[in-house]
Amino acid sequence: MAAVNTTSTPHLTPPLTEEELSDWLRLLRSRRVGIHTFFRLMAEHGNARDALAALPVIAQAAGVDNYASCPPEVVAAELRGARQAGVTWLAHGRAGYPAELAELSDPPPLLALLGDPTLLQRPMIALVGARNASSLGTRMARRLAEDLGAAGYVVVSGLARGIDTAAHHASLATGTVAVMAGGVDVVYPLENAVLAQEIAERGLRLSEQPMHLEPQARHFPRRNRIISGLARAVVVVEAAAKSGSLITARTALDQGRDVLAVPGHPFDARASGCNMLIRDGAVLVRGASDVMEALSREGPVAGTAAEAPVAVPAAPPERRTLAETSALHGMILDRLGPSPLAEDQLIRDLALPVADVAPELLSLELEGRIRRQAGGLLSLVV
Amino acid sequence: MAAVNTTSTPHLTPPLTEEELSDWLRLLRSRRVGIHTFFRLMAEHGNARDALAALPVIAQAAGVDNYASCPPEVVAAELRGARQAGVTWLAHGRAGYPAELAELSDPPPLLALLGDPTLLQRPMIALVGARNASSLGTRMARRLAEDLGAAGYVVVSGLARGIDTAAHHASLATGTVAVMAGGVDVVYPLENAVLAQEIAERGLRLSEQPMHLEPQARHFPRRNRIISGLARAVVVVEAAAKSGSLITARTALDQGRDVLAVPGHPFDARASGCNMLIRDGAVLVRGASDVMEALSREGPVAGTAAEAPVAVPAAPPERRTLAETSALHGMILDRLGPSPLAEDQLIRDLALPVADVAPELLSLELEGRIRRQAGGLLSLVV
Repeated sequence: MAAVNTTSTPHLTPPLTEEELSDWLRLLRSRRVGIHTFFRLMAEHGNARDALAALPVIAQAAGVDNYASCPPEVVAAELRGARQAGVTWLAHGRAGYPAELAELSDPPPLLALLGDPTLLQRPMIALVGARNASSLGTRMARRLAEDLGAAGYVVVSGLARGIDTAAHHASLATGTVAVMAGGVDVVYPLENAVLAQEIAERGLRLSEQPMHLEPQARHFPRRNRIISGLARAVVVVEAAAKSGSLITARTALDQGRDVLAVPGHPFDARASGCNMLIRDGAVLVRGASDVMEALSREGPVAGTAAEAPVAVPAAPPERRTLAETSALHGMILDRLGPSPLAEDQLIRDLALPVADVAPELLSLELEGRIRRQAGGLLSLVV
Repeated sequence: MAAVNTTSTPHLTPPLTEEELSDWLRLLRSRRVGIHTFFRLMAEHGNARDALAALPVIAQAAGVDNYASCPPEVVAAELRGARQAGVTWLAHGRAGYPAELAELSDPPPLLALLGDPTLLQRPMIALVGARNASSLGTRMARRLAEDLGAAGYVVVSGLARGIDTAAHHASLATGTVAVMAGGVDVVYPLENAVLAQEIAERGLRLSEQPMHLEPQARHFPRRNRIISGLARAVVVVEAAAKSGSLITARTALDQGRDVLAVPGHPFDARASGCNMLIRDGAVLVRGASDVMEALSREGPVAGTAAEAPVAVPAAPPERRTLAETSALHGMILDRLGPSPLAEDQLIRDLALPVADVAPELLSLELEGRIRRQAGGLLSLVV
């Protein structure tokens, strides 16, 4: 099987054994096991194998009959495909897992890597922006990526058209990381096939999704949380109002990341998202030095996470049982429809504390089941 | 002689008599009588006539021999010229004098008005920006002026080329005020002669400078303090780095005015001043609604100043004698040369409290005798 990522830094904990990796993957790929659930099960059962064994019982308690966890042969096929593609695996809590990412409330338990894993140990900046970027926007992305690269930063982006493409191209020589929305081996859009190959050879591609998975709309917000999660700051280079880049920016703020934006003239619609961010407090970026100045006001670079002596370092962020969470999700989804409802109103209707509801709303949003709109409105994705 | 401005609001104090106006003007036009000095003399002597009588004695005490105040015939000629041009006079402390302007540390004691003085009783917004404006910039100025005008705001600007011209044109119908750098009758640039005439007929031109005075470089910062002083907020529409508009913005901040700026792409050099302002905390403006929203966070519109029962309502802001101030000015000018010196260093060299030195630096800067540069550097104007 593919070896777990071994970086040049000394390992204090061994990487996952082949068997552990297989169990982690099987637990992760099982129906209804999201990231919170994964970590809660690991915390409750100590290891993935015992969690897998308990899964059908737990599902039944939550009202799901005939639950079957992911079949072992599916996982075996994924691991085989990964090995053939040259993928290495990086597990949460192990050497080389980026500290910034480990800080998230929903860090990916396993990342499939294609390329140079040591890039994850350098400070990273995310450059994101419009797919239909203007020539001004792509020039700016290129300039920022070059200058940040020259200053020692790794550039993270999503391999999309427009800004992402320009950012990766310009940072190939200095360090570039592409976070894939689907499987790490699935290149989208196809026109970036050559760039994707170059990134695998000279930079790094990574994904938390199963090998061969074709990306769908609901995968992008989940992917974007990894882009911003890896980075010390997110720079929005060009973005219209109501664009995906603004969702990334909001996720980044929720994660406690600095959000920065390149301004544009108000008559240029492609600048409206960035101008809105700046109005709302994002740092205005004229060039790489503005980004670095913003970072210098923060603490020192975090580097990689400290080694964790056990497989599941993150305490589960909440204490609800799976059944309770499942019931809460049901209550939320019942109250939402295609017409937008104010988040405040929903929380009042539920008569539950904001602190209980908010993480589940984010979770449902990341799962693509609800949609958040301007003005604190929520609607059901139908 | 020209009547003192009589607005439609009831007068609680009479306007200046012809004789008082003549004395005020003579005191103001006398050598070395700046605005601070004017108000201090009025406070010490109770009226302009007695202050004029005391002037030579005070000058001698300050080490100036053979001091002569402004000859009466000079003032008579100015008043005659003003009357012929249709000028009315508005005195500090009298009905119709704008409250915002009266709040300044250096309000103009007398304003020469050409046009509709009632505009000064409506809330005002200053639009300023580059002379060599881009077409994007002039379109933005026009849009803002139209929309602010439609919302009931009077637009204040400086009748310069570019942004100023666009702003005045677009607000002629709703209310526009041009603050002149030279005499109220001296149109600069000449290409704006028709616009200047239209403003006198439908809007308002004003100046604190003597009639017929051709504007020189040193008059512009003084004029700009009136533009921002009249306004509740200053919007910089387009400005390069190190431009005059940035000096206006800094003056406005010193006056406690909101400073707002229209962003532009960092590759557009004509946006660099605005982007810098936004980075430094200016509100980002995409349209008139952003300006009005910023203002709505403030208190209600101030309107015109309350009537003052005496001619000199403003207490002198400092307690130094004229001789002491004169000596301090000499010490400052002695220490400065054409090469820039840091303001900090100057204040340390003087071994005086910042609170004593800073107002005098501003005063010398406004008089055009010293120049302030980026990075807190000061130099002598030679």
